[in-house]
Amino acid sequence: MGRIICCGLGPGDPDLMSVRADRTVRGAKHVAYFRKKGRPGQARCIVESMLGSDVAEYPMEYPVTTEIAFDSPDYVQLLAGFYDEWAERLARLARAVDVVVLCEGDPYFYGSFMHLHTRLQGRVEIEVIAGIPGMVGCWNGVGQPIALGDDVTTVLMGTLPESELERRMRDSDALVVMKTGRNLAKVRRALASAGRLDDAWLVERGTMPGERVVRLADIDAADCPYFAIVLVHGKGRLPDAAE
Amino acid sequence: MGRIICCGLGPGDPDLMSVRADRTVRGAKHVAYFRKKGRPGQARCIVESMLGSDVAEYPMEYPVTTEIAFDSPDYVQLLAGFYDEWAERLARLARAVDVVVLCEGDPYFYGSFMHLHTRLQGRVEIEVIAGIPGMVGCWNGVGQPIALGDDVTTVLMGTLPESELERRMRDSDALVVMKTGRNLAKVRRALASAGRLDDAWLVERGTMPGERVVRLADIDAADCPYFAIVLVHGKGRLPDAAE
Repeated sequence: MGRIICCGLGPGDPDLMSVRADRTVRGAKHVAYFRKKGRPGQARCIVESMLGSDVAEYPMEYPVTTEIAFDSPDYVQLLAGFYDEWAERLARLARAVDVVVLCEGDPYFYGSFMHLHTRLQGRVEIEVIAGIPGMVGCWNGVGQPIALGDDVTTVLMGTLPESELERRMRDSDALVVMKTGRNLAKVRRALASAGRLDDAWLVERGTMPGERVVRLADIDAADCPYFAIVLVHGKGRLPDAAE
Repeated sequence: MGRIICCGLGPGDPDLMSVRADRTVRGAKHVAYFRKKGRPGQARCIVESMLGSDVAEYPMEYPVTTEIAFDSPDYVQLLAGFYDEWAERLARLARAVDVVVLCEGDPYFYGSFMHLHTRLQGRVEIEVIAGIPGMVGCWNGVGQPIALGDDVTTVLMGTLPESELERRMRDSDALVVMKTGRNLAKVRRALASAGRLDDAWLVERGTMPGERVVRLADIDAADCPYFAIVLVHGKGRLPDAAE
């Protein structure tokens, strides 16, 4: 009996993978990873220099179609079938061998692997290796503490409605906004309405080659960055900040 | 000219340190770390088996006094003097050599090093190595995704007023409560009022020997765990959860 080892790869720089993840990837004989069709896949890129020459690869390609909208119920159903199928394939494979599933960041924190995790529970032994979440790599790039003292930190998805984003941005000390991409203009408006735009940073490709750290207010509205996270730093609530 | 290298050690298991942190600690000649008087210090414990025999150690012992309350302005001033003094000592030391400051978790995320970071800015070259935050190690111990899809995640300190805790616990999908310790009874009441107690986990000494993962509702009210974090998992908001 093999196992499924879901390996958190951290924010992108292979030097920021955990010692355990590093050892696991270098020793892997079977690796699976998500990717968009026609793309190498971000997780696969991170481990490019670490895989043995005899490794068997299982790219799990997201289904794409131009006929169905990305957020429609039909697409969601298509995706569910895709996860069902891969859960089945990985479970079968893991009867004989260990399969390492490569995951960016930390697998339990908004990770795509969790769609497989749910489906594999109880069918096969699963080990999950924690990783440095992508947001941690991003705030490291800014070089200031994201939160201190009694600060409240809120992690928001850019996909939320604008009014909810604005309300929550107003109500938190430190802010992390993920899934920016196509939602960046909305995120920016919500931050401006909440009075937080001037304190916001955008970090693109954090810890990776081509990393860009800029004030969100300074970038062109038409700029649509990849792998970008928006950050607003807490100022350190009392008592710890009262120094 | 040397540097100050603030090394994030991750949640506690040395195997979860980053490859860079591992290399940095093993190569260090001068290491500094915070600790309470009479205690070995959590950060120092993590690297116990990794330090060379010729390493010079600088334990930075928090000032303690039985005369002043821990959260009084006088204590805060005492602490400020302590950070001033150590910033000065480390800056002087770093004129000649590299000094590695050991920090649990990720240094930029509620880390004590930030009190030195502020004071050392512009005086000496500082490198900060990201680490897996303690909370990530804790939710790995529960073995369920902490957040999925469009979930909102809120990180709260148990030191906040009970009414604020309750309001925010009601208003977030996923919850992380740090600085529990003496605040655990209050955190528990706030969770109960917000209707979230039955979904709450307590993780003590996450990823470390003696790790304990229990439902918060099941533990004795007099139980006062160390290094404990309280977690409530998000359920995965639409659209991603609609599978």
